[in-house]
Amino acid sequence: MNQASLAVLKDSIKTIPGYPKPGIMFRDVTSLLEDGKAFRLSIELLAQQFKDHGFTKIVGTEARGFLFGAPLAYELGLGFVPVRKPGKLPRPTNAESYELEYGTDTLEIHKDAIVPGDKVLLVDDLLATGGTIEATAKLVRDLGGIVTDAAFVINLPDLGGAKRLDAIDLNVLSLCEFEGD
Amino acid sequence: MNQASLAVLKDSIKTIPGYPKPGIMFRDVTSLLEDGKAFRLSIELLAQQFKDHGFTKIVGTEARGFLFGAPLAYELGLGFVPVRKPGKLPRPTNAESYELEYGTDTLEIHKDAIVPGDKVLLVDDLLATGGTIEATAKLVRDLGGIVTDAAFVINLPDLGGAKRLDAIDLNVLSLCEFEGD
Repeated sequence: MNQASLAVLKDSIKTIPGYPKPGIMFRDVTSLLEDGKAFRLSIELLAQQFKDHGFTKIVGTEARGFLFGAPLAYELGLGFVPVRKPGKLPRPTNAESYELEYGTDTLEIHKDAIVPGDKVLLVDDLLATGGTIEATAKLVRDLGGIVTDAAFVINLPDLGGAKRLDAIDLNVLSLCEFEGD
Repeated sequence: MNQASLAVLKDSIKTIPGYPKPGIMFRDVTSLLEDGKAFRLSIELLAQQFKDHGFTKIVGTEARGFLFGAPLAYELGLGFVPVRKPGKLPRPTNAESYELEYGTDTLEIHKDAIVPGDKVLLVDDLLATGGTIEATAKLVRDLGGIVTDAAFVINLPDLGGAKRLDAIDLNVLSLCEFEGD
């Protein structure tokens, strides 16, 4: 990808020290989103990377995964399948729980939103430990979807998400990396 | 707008009787979203309607407002400003509470995401009573933004949202109406 474009994106991401708790350098993707040129560029770069690869659906996770997954689905002409917290989806769902730093969280997907053989691209704003995307990949694969790739705007490589996703046979693409997090 | 296109959209929206509680006919916008052609059409129709009107930002509310607001912002080349539940936005925020059927809810916006004179289009998936969008309009206007229009995929006119928004000088555009709700 074009290095000058990637630098524009990285510059548009503000860093908030101490949010949500002391010691964290929070990488704020909403500052990219609020900048019309940077936001458009981020989706164009992802679309260039993933067009003509035969994807049939994009899956993104509530809530920030919607912000990049839905525009990318629009640009590529694909359906967007939302993965949500429990009780938010109206049709019959499958659920998957995953571990957080403290406790667990659960995600749901509509059972009829993926058909066997669907080739699915996973999209989220930020890759940290990879727990959310691992659970999302399992939800899609359990419905017969083929998941080979996950795309992120931001990757924090020190948190090990890319290695974790590699272990479940997911290729990871990210637009910006921040080390030392 | 093209009536055949609007019929395609309306047909893509499934109705779930009795969700989330008995007596409700739930209009399920995720079925439109999961259909790549219908989703693309919905954003194209909104973009045709609002391009060249001088809008500078799009504001959408967590979480379903992100699904249509972010792609529309992308298509129009505008920044997208997310309005979120309390504690989710990392930079300094303003908050606004509004009444629900039982109790109240609160929404937040980044104080620096709107500059005085910004011409803001509000986008959400569905217009029911209009409480969420009324609170969102107040958040934007309190920061000096100019809000004249709100766009929805679905309008449930029997619930009175359009009248409520007309009373605060908002023009309402929706792609599909369902009466008898």
